[in-house]
Amino acid sequence: MGADPRFFPSRGPLALSAVAEAAGVALAEGGDRLFTGVAPLDLAGPGEIAFLEGRRMMAQLRETRAGAVLVAAAMAQDVPEGCIALVTEQPQLAYARVAALFHPRRAPVPGIHPTAHVAPDARIGEGTEIGPFAMIGAGAEIGAGCIIGPHVTVGAGCVLGPGSELRAHASMEYCIAGAGVVLAQGARVGNEGYGFVTTATGEHVTMPQIGRVILGDRVEIGANSCVDRGAGGDTVLGPGTRLDNLVQIGHNVKTGRGCVIVAQVGIAGSAELGDFVVIAAQAGLVGHIKIGSKARIGAQAGVMNDVPAATDVVGSPAWPARETMRAFARLRQLAAPKKDGTPGGTP
Amino acid sequence: MGADPRFFPSRGPLALSAVAEAAGVALAEGGDRLFTGVAPLDLAGPGEIAFLEGRRMMAQLRETRAGAVLVAAAMAQDVPEGCIALVTEQPQLAYARVAALFHPRRAPVPGIHPTAHVAPDARIGEGTEIGPFAMIGAGAEIGAGCIIGPHVTVGAGCVLGPGSELRAHASMEYCIAGAGVVLAQGARVGNEGYGFVTTATGEHVTMPQIGRVILGDRVEIGANSCVDRGAGGDTVLGPGTRLDNLVQIGHNVKTGRGCVIVAQVGIAGSAELGDFVVIAAQAGLVGHIKIGSKARIGAQAGVMNDVPAATDVVGSPAWPARETMRAFARLRQLAAPKKDGTPGGTP
Amino acid sequence: MGADPRFFPSRGPLALSAVAEAAGVALAEGGDRLFTGVAPLDLAGPGEIAFLEGRRMMAQLRETRAGAVLVAAAMAQDVPEGCIALVTEQPQLAYARVAALFHPRRAPVPGIHPTAHVAPDARIGEGTEIGPFAMIGAGAEIGAGCIIGPHVTVGAGCVLGPGSELRAHASMEYCIAGAGVVLAQGARVGNEGYGFVTTATGEHVTMPQIGRVILGDRVEIGANSCVDRGAGGDTVLGPGTRLDNLVQIGHNVKTGRGCVIVAQVGIAGSAELGDFVVIAAQAGLVGHIKIGSKARIGAQAGVMNDVPAATDVVGSPAWPARETMRAFARLRQLAAPKKDGTPGGTP
Repeated sequence: MGADPRFFPSRGPLALSAVAEAAGVALAEGGDRLFTGVAPLDLAGPGEIAFLEGRRMMAQLRETRAGAVLVAAAMAQDVPEGCIALVTEQPQLAYARVAALFHPRRAPVPGIHPTAHVAPDARIGEGTEIGPFAMIGAGAEIGAGCIIGPHVTVGAGCVLGPGSELRAHASMEYCIAGAGVVLAQGARVGNEGYGFVTTATGEHVTMPQIGRVILGDRVEIGANSCVDRGAGGDTVLGPGTRLDNLVQIGHNVKTGRGCVIVAQVGIAGSAELGDFVVIAAQAGLVGHIKIGSKARIGAQAGVMNDVPAATDVVGSPAWPARETMRAFARLRQLAAPKKDGTPGGTP
Repeated sequence: MGADPRFFPSRGPLALSAVAEAAGVALAEGGDRLFTGVAPLDLAGPGEIAFLEGRRMMAQLRETRAGAVLVAAAMAQDVPEGCIALVTEQPQLAYARVAALFHPRRAPVPGIHPTAHVAPDARIGEGTEIGPFAMIGAGAEIGAGCIIGPHVTVGAGCVLGPGSELRAHASMEYCIAGAGVVLAQGARVGNEGYGFVTTATGEHVTMPQIGRVILGDRVEIGANSCVDRGAGGDTVLGPGTRLDNLVQIGHNVKTGRGCVIVAQVGIAGSAELGDFVVIAAQAGLVGHIKIGSKARIGAQAGVMNDVPAATDVVGSPAWPARETMRAFARLRQLAAPKKDGTPGGTP
Repeated sequence: MGADPRFFPSRGPLALSAVAEAAGVALAEGGDRLFTGVAPLDLAGPGEIAFLEGRRMMAQLRETRAGAVLVAAAMAQDVPEGCIALVTEQPQLAYARVAALFHPRRAPVPGIHPTAHVAPDARIGEGTEIGPFAMIGAGAEIGAGCIIGPHVTVGAGCVLGPGSELRAHASMEYCIAGAGVVLAQGARVGNEGYGFVTTATGEHVTMPQIGRVILGDRVEIGANSCVDRGAGGDTVLGPGTRLDNLVQIGHNVKTGRGCVIVAQVGIAGSAELGDFVVIAAQAGLVGHIKIGSKARIGAQAGVMNDVPAATDVVGSPAWPARETMRAFARLRQLAAPKKDGTPGGTP
């Protein structure tokens, strides 16, 4: 079973030759056969294309009813009879391209919805769609070909590059954003950072937060995630960085290119990430530390110090992954009851 | 002191006989006595009804000024003089029913607010209330007797069952929901999942997310929680499942009936929960694991493997609860200073 | 480089004498010199004022191009030539006051936006600004000099004190709030708490949540944070308490004055905090515990028991900080490989 046409109309049926071209796959035969769409291996029918990446779903492969499957060469012999093997080194990537062939991202429907409020001096690019109850502030600039969803707020003076999409209830303030940026539902960009000074009598005096948020091209921010603006100087997310949902980014954080920041991660103020850093879900980083390029932070890790490039850390407080795994295994061993019922193994 | 009538008007005063009937309590005498509402044991006055569950609040029971108290038989003798003991096996459940008698859920005020935007081909059920600035997309179907709050977005093609309530700023897209569903303030349902494939040069290519969210009857989703739609196939929350606030549900997660998922929990893609699973606050589950029915996951646990049915796990990484408690006690013992100041007890 | 004038217009240039007065700094000479604004030490130019607190940025101080720097007396000799040292015991606090001199908080622009919806019987204070698509419910009272941002919901019967600010997409229901209160973007106040009773057959019966939220003067709630209303009785945040983003506050939680609750913290129902408690990011507190005044809870801590006043705890489960640090160091030692490759040091 493929995508529900109420939500995801398909451009299909399409000939297998077109599919193969999108996937970058050489096709021996069957190029005229028509396919209606894509579906997961266990749900696909004879008119649909599936994929297998790695070995976890091998059992599903052998039983699939899919009409064609994108697979690595090593698995091609496991494709069941009647199903066409589309051989590629990167089945999942090829599948992403085929899925986008059948279900391209929705194009903007140019125009401003009658219920929207656009400031007279805001500039709206050609072909851009402004949805119901959207609010575009004074002097804001929205690029061409954008989709501004329902109930979106774009604050005064903001700049949003072409081909961007702000989904329902997202808000953007004090922000300069590049091309192809995505804010998911309820994402909050440009909030006042958590900055104040406490007096001797316990009064919290707000530190004016007078920096911006700079979003590079193709930055994506997940649903209900928060990116605070800089205190002085900017908060910067580098090109291609993607945040999942419910992520917290403090003031003056800086990331390089292509960072991957999974759900419910929190990064405190002024932390700096290199390129292609991966931070797994629910991890936390204290402020003012530096994470080297291609470092990987484990889920729920608590990172309190700099992490060198290309290094994996896990745990809270975070240590190098190998050392942490050894420590927990050791603790388990020490805590295991001995035969006489007293605690613990010998060291 | 009972509920503030500005916010929670009471249907009282009501006779104790009506209260007892709602509570399922047999009443020997005093059925004509009038009560104005309910209140906690320490705040209730002579015209109000309170309850005691368990033994924690015994001191409050002895000093209560409540006119009547719902209690288990074993505590009835501790009810102070002048206070009527309403004996029941489940005092808290009985109290919930009595509280709902005085303060029933607000009924919808049928009609569409003049500021709302409803697509011409959307279907709105009888007796449903559509609030200010609500946005109902093309072809959406809203059942009878629903309350759609202010600033709510219902995306094109969505289906919402009768008697449901979408509170202020909630959004629902790509979703088929049953009867009696509740989305709290700012809940996000149907977001694009965090799915992409990274090329050799570090570019993140979006995997089209072409599945839906299926919400069973009486599913409730807390404030600012997020439920991503399926990548291919659906994300499914079974009937009666309740999410607290700020919860993250990844694409293609499936839960059974009546699961309880407390605040700030994160469940990664394609994890599957049986029926009546309980996940305490801030716990995290990695993707593609299976949690058996009636399993219980401790607060802040990090679950990296399948959990059998009816099993308790705690800790990060999560272990069986008993083993973890023993390990931490052992660690504490090993780290305690010896009398000579050097670290640690002997194993 | 100072603040971007598109977003943060400056009241400058201002004479150094005015700056010194705002900072509470005695000035020997140069009072006529003009400054355009403030900036961080590493970004400030000759027309801007910076500050140094502590020793971490000493290298930046020696190389700063700032025209003047707020510093403690001990660092004054390290201020480079041509830069004026403004000596104060609290440089960061002085900087906050100077920054606010150049960039005071935006004043409300009195009036109700034509797209807003204000109930006929709501009372709006003098000089208050109501933004686009704001919704003010029946009988609500908004004080004087408030800013109600775009897409804000204020529920029926709510009371908001003078000088408060509700930013874009914030919602407030069942709430009585003092003066100078701030709700950041997407903050949710007054949600139904996570209260239900489960029957023997697994049905979750909602416990009516008929309490309020009481916010003291100057309470601030971060972006997308959630504060549930009381179940019976109230949820109370004491004066000056500040919540960062994505914080969860359960029903009937009570805090004292000036508490500091950092991003992604979760506090379960009926927990009580004294005055000036600090809870670092991602920590969690179970319900019904008491945290003494000036206690400090570490990041990611899991607090399961009462914490005495002025006590530091860390870890999950949380222990006194010193004991936890010792335990982790001990574990690391026990798990370190011996020279022969077998695990662990001797105890």
